[in-house]
Amino acid sequence: MEENNKLFIPIILGTAREGRESEKVAKYIERKARENFKLKTEIIDVKELDFTGTEGKGLAEKNPKFKTTIEKADGLIIVTPEYNHGYPGSLKITLDMLFEEYKHKCVGMVGVSRGGFGGARVIENILPVIKDLSLVTIRPDLNFSNVEGLFDEAGKIKDESYNGKVDVFLKELIWMTKTLKWGRENIS
Amino acid sequence: MEENNKLFIPIILGTAREGRESEKVAKYIERKARENFKLKTEIIDVKELDFTGTEGKGLAEKNPKFKTTIEKADGLIIVTPEYNHGYPGSLKITLDMLFEEYKHKCVGMVGVSRGGFGGARVIENILPVIKDLSLVTIRPDLNFSNVEGLFDEAGKIKDESYNGKVDVFLKELIWMTKTLKWGRENIS
Amino acid sequence: MEENNKLFIPIILGTAREGRESEKVAKYIERKARENFKLKTEIIDVKELDFTGTEGKGLAEKNPKFKTTIEKADGLIIVTPEYNHGYPGSLKITLDMLFEEYKHKCVGMVGVSRGGFGGARVIENILPVIKDLSLVTIRPDLNFSNVEGLFDEAGKIKDESYNGKVDVFLKELIWMTKTLKWGRENIS
Amino acid sequence: MEENNKLFIPIILGTAREGRESEKVAKYIERKARENFKLKTEIIDVKELDFTGTEGKGLAEKNPKFKTTIEKADGLIIVTPEYNHGYPGSLKITLDMLFEEYKHKCVGMVGVSRGGFGGARVIENILPVIKDLSLVTIRPDLNFSNVEGLFDEAGKIKDESYNGKVDVFLKELIWMTKTLKWGRENIS
Repeated sequence: MEENNKLFIPIILGTAREGRESEKVAKYIERKARENFKLKTEIIDVKELDFTGTEGKGLAEKNPKFKTTIEKADGLIIVTPEYNHGYPGSLKITLDMLFEEYKHKCVGMVGVSRGGFGGARVIENILPVIKDLSLVTIRPDLNFSNVEGLFDEAGKIKDESYNGKVDVFLKELIWMTKTLKWGRENIS
Repeated sequence: MEENNKLFIPIILGTAREGRESEKVAKYIERKARENFKLKTEIIDVKELDFTGTEGKGLAEKNPKFKTTIEKADGLIIVTPEYNHGYPGSLKITLDMLFEEYKHKCVGMVGVSRGGFGGARVIENILPVIKDLSLVTIRPDLNFSNVEGLFDEAGKIKDESYNGKVDVFLKELIWMTKTLKWGRENIS
Repeated sequence: MEENNKLFIPIILGTAREGRESEKVAKYIERKARENFKLKTEIIDVKELDFTGTEGKGLAEKNPKFKTTIEKADGLIIVTPEYNHGYPGSLKITLDMLFEEYKHKCVGMVGVSRGGFGGARVIENILPVIKDLSLVTIRPDLNFSNVEGLFDEAGKIKDESYNGKVDVFLKELIWMTKTLKWGRENIS
Repeated sequence: MEENNKLFIPIILGTAREGRESEKVAKYIERKARENFKLKTEIIDVKELDFTGTEGKGLAEKNPKFKTTIEKADGLIIVTPEYNHGYPGSLKITLDMLFEEYKHKCVGMVGVSRGGFGGARVIENILPVIKDLSLVTIRPDLNFSNVEGLFDEAGKIKDESYNGKVDVFLKELIWMTKTLKWGRENIS
């Protein structure tokens, strides 16, 4: 596991909505990634990005730190709520800023919803986008259902059954991240 | 056809990207809807909406004209480019502002792309969102391929085969709009 | 409600898998449709259709009763399990047999799964197919989760919270069925 | 390139429809894979599989050769026509037979249509299934449009622009196949 601390896997917090619950989920996963797997990680908050004036690749210049972070990343985690069965506009504007920076990197998907289906639908919805960015998905997702009330005030998760699922998810994410990193470095 | 002038079917221009080609498509359809079918219509430009501070229903208050327009609408046309096989973030932020205002209204989908597949993929991608907003789709879509160079400087379309397709599309849109309007007014 | 007994809304049971649980769900909905809403209905079991030799419209000739049933239908209910996040092959072969017979009719979607998300993903997956067949969806779906053990030996549902959801679903299905029927009969 | 002859990448011909055009596409790709890249390959024809009695994993026993072929495969190519914007039922029944055999293997998607969009929509539609089988997609797809008349009687493609696209597709497929093979053999 010591070698994991060479892997940098940032977490995109994919909503700018006021009162968003997904922030708690992102922080919970960040902590698990560090504590249980020694990963290097940080949260990329789409709310802090500059979307003024346009959308598309033109925005990359206005957000140089985002570009640099994705360039350095070995893999990604995307935490996304489900809005009307689809992805938030702010997450899409964020992803659409870059292109080559994602190539042949792994992404793990985390769905969040106030209802009972844990954002299962938004994950299905974003798959074509993920593929067109040359990102590579893994089979296990994380689905956080009934997110209001799921965490206590200290950010601790009340339903401990999530802990095991996060471990399965991160283990697979690390497998794919290491595999693709080898490919990028060794196969032309 | 005279009764069509009682139908109000605005067109959402679903991208804020600089240099967007979809604007030409929206204007072309607006003209056809008025000239060929006597529909009342206007373009709702997502670029002119206020997205500051949040996303979600909180934005409706900042965009009262958008809310009123959708309330008054009998149906909708959405013109959307395809960005990485998905819908633009600005279009999604726009749609996510409202909810009840869409109920049991018809929507016609227009895909736009610089490549050869006319935005066919973004239309598939947005279908779950459309359904969750209680909007009702029609079978025929419009697909504008190779959009750069498709219109002359006056906004006239160079490939005249589109004219017939627009007529088929609008005819079906009117059928469904009238049908749903009757349902809203007559069935509790 | 008396007029509902003129509406014929058959239920497609969309799997041929041995040991399928969806059959219990289809029978439960059939009973509710008759008892609570006086609808005319029957179950179309894809397991009893003839798929030999080909797929596509060529199969319609081998299944004349299916063709007649869909022709007579005012609307449809599709009960589908979720197999690897998609629809069963047998359901797709069934739907692909016909085309004009579906036009401008309403469909209500019922997802079934052994896990906790009630077939939410298969419903998203089948939406493009539904639209291309000129079928019209409604917003409410039914999602049957953890279906093993959900019904007792007499076919009675153990979790009574489903009863209210079925009523909401059927009420909306009837609204759309009546509306589209009016459109088919009154708008050219 | 000599090492490619150790890679076994079979091609699933994903339709049982009489008069299917996709067979020509599968044979064309098979030839290119052998001639241009020295890959070991063969066509798995879903029409020759036994679907009687059920669907799901129960069918694996009736189709032992299919199971063995996928077990031995280093990667996969799926050639699929687009039927009503979705995947053929016969392809889905085939894929649903197995599970562990697909794990961490690469798949390249080839869409086929009689119309102009090259099966672009069926590829989007099957992505959730692919992911749930632990298969890994690549960014480039192949899209065969207007397939009737695309090949001469000897099976030679008339539009030579496809040749370059096939090379890009196979090159990326080989990259991902080698990468994942390394992962399967070296990372626990």
